[in-house]
Amino acid sequence: MNKVAITNFGNTKFSHDDISIESCLLSSTKALFEQNSNLSKNDIDAVLVATNENKKYLSPILSELSGIKPKISHTVENLCSSGTNAIVSAYSYIASGLANVALVVGAERFDSPGQILEWDNSRGEYKHPIFWASIFTKSYKRRFGITDEDLAIVSVKNHKNAKDNPNAYSNKTYTIEDVLNSRKLTDEIKILDCSRPCTGSSAILLASEDYVKKITDTPVWIAGIGQKTESASFTKSNSFTDMASTKEAARSAFENSKLQPKNVNVAEIHDAFSVCEPMILEDLGFVNKGGGLEYSKNLYNTDNRKINPRGGLIGAGHPLSATGVAQTIEITQQLQGKAGKRQILDANIGLVHNMAAAATSSTVLLLRS
Amino acid sequence: MNKVAITNFGNTKFSHDDISIESCLLSSTKALFEQNSNLSKNDIDAVLVATNENKKYLSPILSELSGIKPKISHTVENLCSSGTNAIVSAYSYIASGLANVALVVGAERFDSPGQILEWDNSRGEYKHPIFWASIFTKSYKRRFGITDEDLAIVSVKNHKNAKDNPNAYSNKTYTIEDVLNSRKLTDEIKILDCSRPCTGSSAILLASEDYVKKITDTPVWIAGIGQKTESASFTKSNSFTDMASTKEAARSAFENSKLQPKNVNVAEIHDAFSVCEPMILEDLGFVNKGGGLEYSKNLYNTDNRKINPRGGLIGAGHPLSATGVAQTIEITQQLQGKAGKRQILDANIGLVHNMAAAATSSTVLLLRS
Repeated sequence: MNKVAITNFGNTKFSHDDISIESCLLSSTKALFEQNSNLSKNDIDAVLVATNENKKYLSPILSELSGIKPKISHTVENLCSSGTNAIVSAYSYIASGLANVALVVGAERFDSPGQILEWDNSRGEYKHPIFWASIFTKSYKRRFGITDEDLAIVSVKNHKNAKDNPNAYSNKTYTIEDVLNSRKLTDEIKILDCSRPCTGSSAILLASEDYVKKITDTPVWIAGIGQKTESASFTKSNSFTDMASTKEAARSAFENSKLQPKNVNVAEIHDAFSVCEPMILEDLGFVNKGGGLEYSKNLYNTDNRKINPRGGLIGAGHPLSATGVAQTIEITQQLQGKAGKRQILDANIGLVHNMAAAATSSTVLLLRS
Repeated sequence: MNKVAITNFGNTKFSHDDISIESCLLSSTKALFEQNSNLSKNDIDAVLVATNENKKYLSPILSELSGIKPKISHTVENLCSSGTNAIVSAYSYIASGLANVALVVGAERFDSPGQILEWDNSRGEYKHPIFWASIFTKSYKRRFGITDEDLAIVSVKNHKNAKDNPNAYSNKTYTIEDVLNSRKLTDEIKILDCSRPCTGSSAILLASEDYVKKITDTPVWIAGIGQKTESASFTKSNSFTDMASTKEAARSAFENSKLQPKNVNVAEIHDAFSVCEPMILEDLGFVNKGGGLEYSKNLYNTDNRKINPRGGLIGAGHPLSATGVAQTIEITQQLQGKAGKRQILDANIGLVHNMAAAATSSTVLLLRS
């Protein structure tokens, strides 16, 4: 089976821009090609678009706009996980030998139709994601005796990290008090506990081992993949303080990479809401159950950017299908030693955690330089 | 690399039913599981939904409704090619070792948003597929001195074949005169020259060699895959009497299977409109350029069902994303010797040709018993 590496990427600044999804897709694709003059458009075998937009045939459209005539082209959609699902699919095309080089472009507009969970009848009229986040928050606080003040550290830390991410939606920083005093959306959730849906696009190139040598000296290898779908409905989950799909995706990724949580130097994880960060840290195995917030607080106090160095979703913004690709780009840059002010020293193993719809499905990638 | 086979399938009758896409997806999935008692839902590693519907997260929804908790789940969209694109993706998950067993379910409603090519600005206001079909028809007739009467054989033959397909939208047969006298939609196209968008769902199961033995004695192997995207816009094509993407997809599939057109015993090809069948027969290499209609006429006159035995799109109906899966099921049944009245004698090599948006992209699969 072919080994697969990430060789190139292109990013855009996350914003509230009212631009077409086609322009959005094209902007990060252009940035990717401008990054590497060794790369020829004729080499691209697959173009996978990740988006929740309702428009059709976007991969052939992006291909035509970019001057690419791939073999394989289509759109991948799985709500917030679309970007990493498309990366895993691109991996499989290359590992199976159907492609040598695959381009994955995730893009979303601020008004994406993927933001409201129309289908989740298990929650009655409470279809907006803030409602599942409220249930998680209430349950987590009760189980572990956590206060709103404890939770606020996630937003404070991730906004601070995002300040050094030139592509972040905003570069404002906040205090614990700012978070606590920000607009209340539900009994449990304040606006600074939320990631912000926005416009953005991120592009990444994956290639087979043979091809990698021709285009880069600093490939980042995909060392482990774990994915799990538990359900579609939030209330099918057994517990509101654990993410079963994340646990299983992590178990699988660590097993097939022969790595362990202690080997991971840097990680981007899906902090759609404050409470998600501690839950994910626990379910990935970085810390025992109930210890997630203490872990995040220690990182903040020691100015350690190990978790969500680009600011996570809360700090960087959350253009749904671009998020998984942007997370993977951040870890790629970290493992290449090219993350600028955000750089973690001596990082050679990184993790990406992405999920959709209240963690009813999750993806974990392990990357290695 | 793992060998991959088709082991099971589930079909629904194509109709004009006004049912939800979720129910539509579920019906063929249920039929698939009812077909094989050796099959356990716990074995399914991937669930790929192919559809043009605007609803999101349909693969986890289908999984939950069906009692499956897969690793991999998402929707694949590439207009009319969605079904075969999802099959090729499922192949790659298995060939790469990420999955042992993958379920692909294509479904569409009669009012699918994939029917109008909103994005193709190259054709001004003429966004409905009948307009590209009219340009193809006019060009093809002029270049090869073809008459409307010559073209009508495609609809007559494929409706006749569909009469023995219990899942076809209609089981009416027509004469050449019926086709010529049917309602005129454009200068070149009459309603009986068109495939009918409809509601339908088709499910197929792919498995690795190790797993195949556990669940079936009659696997059908995927022997060759070719895919090509030339453009998104119709007018980027170089010629209106050739399908460049079909030629390249066929070249690639024959090359990687070490087969030739003369080895193919039975084929389902994408006759969205009458003119498509001769063009595709020529571009697949079954007959020289300009000889496609004579080829179809000879089949009709000798009661030979080699091309489009289930009736093709014109005979069976065209629920966009279900079509590619339904085509693949027909060829699977033929190679298993289980196609009933439609059976081609001694068929052991079969071909599936699917395409999207005026053949701006194409997929060719070669299957072998």
